[in-house]
Amino acid sequence: MKPNFVFSLLITPLFLLTLHSNANTATYIIHMNKSFSPKVFTTHHEWFKSTINSLKSKTLLRDDHDYQSHKKLVYTYDNAMYGFSAVLSSNELETLNNIDGFVAAYQDRTATIDTTHTFEFLSLDSPSGLWHASNFGDDIIVGVIDSGVWPESQSFKDHGMTKKIPNKWKGTCESGQEFNTSMCNFKLIGARYFNKGVIASNPNVTSIYMNSARDIVGHGTHTSSTVAGNYVNGASYFGYAKGVARGIAPKARLAMYKVIWEEGLLASDVLAGMDQAIIDGVDVISISMGFDDAPLYEDPIAIASFAAMEKGIVVSSSAGNAGPDLGTLHNGIPWLITVAAGTIDRTFGTLVLGNGQNIIGWTLFPSNATIVENLPLVHKHTLSSCNSMKLLSQLYKQAIILCDDDSISNPRSVFDQINLVAETGVLGAIFVSDNPDLIDLGNVYSPIIVIKPKDAQSVLKYAKSNKNPTASIKFQQTFVGINPAPAAAHYSSRGPSHYFPWILKPDIMAPGSRVLAAYIPTKPSARIGTNVFLSNDYNFMSGTSMACPHASGVAALLKSTHPKWSAAAIRSALKNRPCTPLVTTANPMDNTQNPIRDNAYPSQYASPLAIGAGEIDPNRAMNPGLIYDATPQDYVNLLCALKYTKTQILTITRSSSYDCENPSFDLNYPSFIALYSNKTTSMVHKFKRTVTNVGNGAATYKAKVIQPKGCVVTVSPDILDFSYRNEKQSYYININIKYVVYKKKRVSFGDLVWIEDGGTHTVRSPIVVAPR
Amino acid sequence: MKPNFVFSLLITPLFLLTLHSNANTATYIIHMNKSFSPKVFTTHHEWFKSTINSLKSKTLLRDDHDYQSHKKLVYTYDNAMYGFSAVLSSNELETLNNIDGFVAAYQDRTATIDTTHTFEFLSLDSPSGLWHASNFGDDIIVGVIDSGVWPESQSFKDHGMTKKIPNKWKGTCESGQEFNTSMCNFKLIGARYFNKGVIASNPNVTSIYMNSARDIVGHGTHTSSTVAGNYVNGASYFGYAKGVARGIAPKARLAMYKVIWEEGLLASDVLAGMDQAIIDGVDVISISMGFDDAPLYEDPIAIASFAAMEKGIVVSSSAGNAGPDLGTLHNGIPWLITVAAGTIDRTFGTLVLGNGQNIIGWTLFPSNATIVENLPLVHKHTLSSCNSMKLLSQLYKQAIILCDDDSISNPRSVFDQINLVAETGVLGAIFVSDNPDLIDLGNVYSPIIVIKPKDAQSVLKYAKSNKNPTASIKFQQTFVGINPAPAAAHYSSRGPSHYFPWILKPDIMAPGSRVLAAYIPTKPSARIGTNVFLSNDYNFMSGTSMACPHASGVAALLKSTHPKWSAAAIRSALKNRPCTPLVTTANPMDNTQNPIRDNAYPSQYASPLAIGAGEIDPNRAMNPGLIYDATPQDYVNLLCALKYTKTQILTITRSSSYDCENPSFDLNYPSFIALYSNKTTSMVHKFKRTVTNVGNGAATYKAKVIQPKGCVVTVSPDILDFSYRNEKQSYYININIKYVVYKKKRVSFGDLVWIEDGGTHTVRSPIVVAPR
Repeated sequence: MKPNFVFSLLITPLFLLTLHSNANTATYIIHMNKSFSPKVFTTHHEWFKSTINSLKSKTLLRDDHDYQSHKKLVYTYDNAMYGFSAVLSSNELETLNNIDGFVAAYQDRTATIDTTHTFEFLSLDSPSGLWHASNFGDDIIVGVIDSGVWPESQSFKDHGMTKKIPNKWKGTCESGQEFNTSMCNFKLIGARYFNKGVIASNPNVTSIYMNSARDIVGHGTHTSSTVAGNYVNGASYFGYAKGVARGIAPKARLAMYKVIWEEGLLASDVLAGMDQAIIDGVDVISISMGFDDAPLYEDPIAIASFAAMEKGIVVSSSAGNAGPDLGTLHNGIPWLITVAAGTIDRTFGTLVLGNGQNIIGWTLFPSNATIVENLPLVHKHTLSSCNSMKLLSQLYKQAIILCDDDSISNPRSVFDQINLVAETGVLGAIFVSDNPDLIDLGNVYSPIIVIKPKDAQSVLKYAKSNKNPTASIKFQQTFVGINPAPAAAHYSSRGPSHYFPWILKPDIMAPGSRVLAAYIPTKPSARIGTNVFLSNDYNFMSGTSMACPHASGVAALLKSTHPKWSAAAIRSALKNRPCTPLVTTANPMDNTQNPIRDNAYPSQYASPLAIGAGEIDPNRAMNPGLIYDATPQDYVNLLCALKYTKTQILTITRSSSYDCENPSFDLNYPSFIALYSNKTTSMVHKFKRTVTNVGNGAATYKAKVIQPKGCVVTVSPDILDFSYRNEKQSYYININIKYVVYKKKRVSFGDLVWIEDGGTHTVRSPIVVAPR
Repeated sequence: MKPNFVFSLLITPLFLLTLHSNANTATYIIHMNKSFSPKVFTTHHEWFKSTINSLKSKTLLRDDHDYQSHKKLVYTYDNAMYGFSAVLSSNELETLNNIDGFVAAYQDRTATIDTTHTFEFLSLDSPSGLWHASNFGDDIIVGVIDSGVWPESQSFKDHGMTKKIPNKWKGTCESGQEFNTSMCNFKLIGARYFNKGVIASNPNVTSIYMNSARDIVGHGTHTSSTVAGNYVNGASYFGYAKGVARGIAPKARLAMYKVIWEEGLLASDVLAGMDQAIIDGVDVISISMGFDDAPLYEDPIAIASFAAMEKGIVVSSSAGNAGPDLGTLHNGIPWLITVAAGTIDRTFGTLVLGNGQNIIGWTLFPSNATIVENLPLVHKHTLSSCNSMKLLSQLYKQAIILCDDDSISNPRSVFDQINLVAETGVLGAIFVSDNPDLIDLGNVYSPIIVIKPKDAQSVLKYAKSNKNPTASIKFQQTFVGINPAPAAAHYSSRGPSHYFPWILKPDIMAPGSRVLAAYIPTKPSARIGTNVFLSNDYNFMSGTSMACPHASGVAALLKSTHPKWSAAAIRSALKNRPCTPLVTTANPMDNTQNPIRDNAYPSQYASPLAIGAGEIDPNRAMNPGLIYDATPQDYVNLLCALKYTKTQILTITRSSSYDCENPSFDLNYPSFIALYSNKTTSMVHKFKRTVTNVGNGAATYKAKVIQPKGCVVTVSPDILDFSYRNEKQSYYININIKYVVYKKKRVSFGDLVWIEDGGTHTVRSPIVVAPR
């Protein structure tokens, strides 16, 4: 798994145990065909149990060890998928392959897990915005598939919540270790936990630590409070980002499905959690994790989210933290929302020079009211690389030392400097860096500040020109409105999806860097020096795991505002990022009114493979003008066109009621990706799309194309006249890729924008041309 | 000066400059006789200015350097004393000695400066107690002579204060550096500053830093908020002692007279501050400092407080921090209250062993939410003396180390251990110590806890008997009700007074150890490791400086309840510490119902030379039964009996209206001290006292004596029958000192207690027999 940034503070025994698999037995997920279920069984559970028992007699001939059938069956599934998981030997698996109703089987696998001024940054606090339209999500239930919750967190209290749980709710609050039923309330309405898969895969595990929905990892508490945490006054990270914390849908209800354990994170448990969430009646599923090496028909999130989509449940997932290389994304699943992570417009702390100059920098030193004032400022050739513990510790315990930027010779040098300074205990230090790795993910262990290279010159000039230069560092200051923001976070995984590149992913970007949300008090969220570990009720975390619940929260608000919209319609609306009125660029805008940049390549604008349609815009999503809808059969048609086998399709759909009569690449998706290979014969990619007018009535839209470099894109018709609300109209676009693109293996980006005549709506779809 | 405990965190340039004095000039305080004031001068100021100018012509003959008369005069005084201070050459001083009206002159001198569950500990929160009787001191003005205030502190806001300043108030809110008039309010009604003496004594000082009533030392903010700070929710020292902070007289008004400067603390400025406080109309003066080497007639506090006493102003002062040796006390002045410091019943933090055992210990590690949980507990012979940085830092960064108690070989060893551990950065450490120096005055720089030797055995036993012992340390916990408390603080200066041993001092003990009160945010109140300095709005400080404002606060409440009582009556009432009903012991009680102990000699009970009448008891002081009153002439009679010269007496009294017609050792003081020397001829000391019945009406009191060892004390009469309220009756006591006392130079303690018949009043006066 990718290093988990904030977790890296602690030597956590997370995923200490490796996935158990040997020649004799392993956990398998088995998909079955419902239509084969014998009538003698009244429930799917009975059938599957009987199936396992039948293996006993059939395999005893070959395996004569003690056979414990009741220990074999891990879970049975009826909603997220149809089938079960079981611990099987290879012989048993072979036997199972031949029984009636068997669809597919694959081994259990491990997922990778990928906070609160963000509501302001997303302009949710506008009086005419989505918060008010949706009554803050009061009637919506969000199921979070994660590591559990810390029920005592103020974010999960139910002050101000309507004292009525929506009727659709069928879930429960399971008791367990250090968790009892009374810990749920009108905010946290459900809490369940699933670890049979972990236990089955790790026979050496004799007991599960914290065998309940209680979070001991911190991830689930953070993500669930980001989606729908209640209002909490005075939340901060040791005084940083202080304010009223709240989730994106602050009145939505939360149901936690714990599947992440210190002992492991397995597909079988994820399937069980999502299965239960569907049964329980959630409206939105938020899942901040993904399976990196799984085709759709073996990816539990793809499988379970298909079932969810059929029921109108919106599934929002994280793109992964494997960026910035292209093709690193997971959850590239057509029927859910894949969320990339962006930065936000916030920084912390000031450097004050003795001449009165103030330089806003970056620090998160976690101790309250640290005093670093009017100390001598030291910049000497022998010291300024800040790589000698001896020099640092002997000479400069009474000064602030200015360290040089060595990032050209070693991009990680600032991390080394920060660590060394923490060990030597200097009174203060100034580092020069704009490494986004540091700003988004780094930690601060001593009273230091990081300034940008562009600001370093004036500090150096002052230090050199003054006989007795001094400086101060101000901590626990929070500045918002910092430019440019958002930017694509360097770590955010990039499309296309390795296993499913035919749909442009990610869909959308949401705040993911340094998100403040609730945390668990039993795990350090900061360190001072080398030995002092501190906990806090709120913590900054970074990752697409943090971006995902922002999208989940907006989806919850949209679902409340437009209860009849399909999951596809909600996704389409979510992706509706504003353009400038003149649409002069292919990119959505940042807070400098320039296209969003890519933090991994600061001189470049971010591509749709990094940010999808761009930063999520809740208020605009509320009233998108046009939407691109899709039915379950539409998704199946795409799988058919891609020559997925019947079995593979059945594994996903669980039902033979879908057919392959109309295979089509034209999934009605609000974006375009034209993949080419050296072998390509066709130079022209053609797409059909159908848009639904969800404006107030008659409307005319005209097409405007921002041409991808090396391509010619045409639209037909290029004017769409709608006479009434909910009218559908179709159009075609041709993407003609020129030879230069093939030759240079270029990735080109463009945009198709439908601009309403005299109206406020502009409906943009990104276009990507990329090698396969 | 004594090391200033909490200050020792910082290398503060306090008193950086030494007192200026050379052959040519020095600052002198000159007492003048008012009756000699020529009629041509309408003000004292004109006379004194003219006097200085006359020196010019008279001395020019000898000194021909440039003479700047306006720079010579430092202050003129008319209330605290009569006279002026001036920078004079020895020739000028000689000339001055001979002019009409000259009384005395002495060189300016430097003082030594000697917080809030304490109100509960003193039972002020009882519904029938002094708080309610006095309306929390609403009509009382307390003048604090100290280092200034931090006006922005919540403790000095005026929420809930009557929006009417008492009519008697004639003071003002002086503006100055970073201080303007609007910073005063209905709580902080006055603020002035006095530093001409500091400037005069330090010709090299070109400018005074923070030339206003703003506190940059912290001492004045702490003491003044202890006397009369307003209610402040959630005050704590980094989470320790969290609660509603408030002063002892939470509705009394505060007036600050700043005389403590980073540049020095001089008698001339103290006199000016007290002079002004008297003019301004304060009811109580609180002064937490003292002059160590001054006879009464050269001690500005003795001089100014005589003037205050004449006007009914109660002056409360600190005994000093030079204990525990006898004879170390300052402010041994008969007409004011001298306050000793006691411990309180509070400690912080728990050690939790892996076997579940909880041991309440002591820690003040200042970082919020530090996690030291379930770490291996290490106790090894090679390490346990905790004196090897190499071993500690290399081997135990993942464990809690248990350090041995080496106090027998080195009483300071625990301080060395704590410092070393802070430098090496171990994850956690347990120290074994009951050194009161540490508990009252020490600091904590890393995640450690100190346990008592009696608790160490079970930790050692657990560590040795268990294969993998573990431990946790819980920080930010506060425990009250800890036994035994109060005890005499080891640092509190002991009587008798070197310069004035004839009155038993101190008068009373009040909480002085680890008092939480307001602090300044510009100065560190804590440190983490070796380099992280932290500030906090509230701070623990220890010293008689902290005890004094507790007594000042109670005096303010008493003054409000009994507005007509003299300063002597209020002191007498304050000293009325309860006895057990049966009066079986000479000592007042601690919270174990045993006599108060002396922390400097833990096996011993505290003597009246350490604690005076014992711990202050506000509710009992409200209704004392009998009081011992005294007039200004009574004090003069004592000075006369002691053969003070006319000039010495005039220096103190400023007025010839007092006479020496009735010299008497029998100052009507509610305690007895019989001093003996080898040369003594009389073996019997005889005292006369007069008590005033301040009960509701008729009352009969019977004498009970707890005999001092080696003495026989008799009382005559031993029954006092009062017929009406405010009736006075006198009695005599004889103290017959046996030879064994002389021979062994023994200090003996006893008590005279007047016990009301069938009533609730017991009026106790300590008796001390000591060598002179």
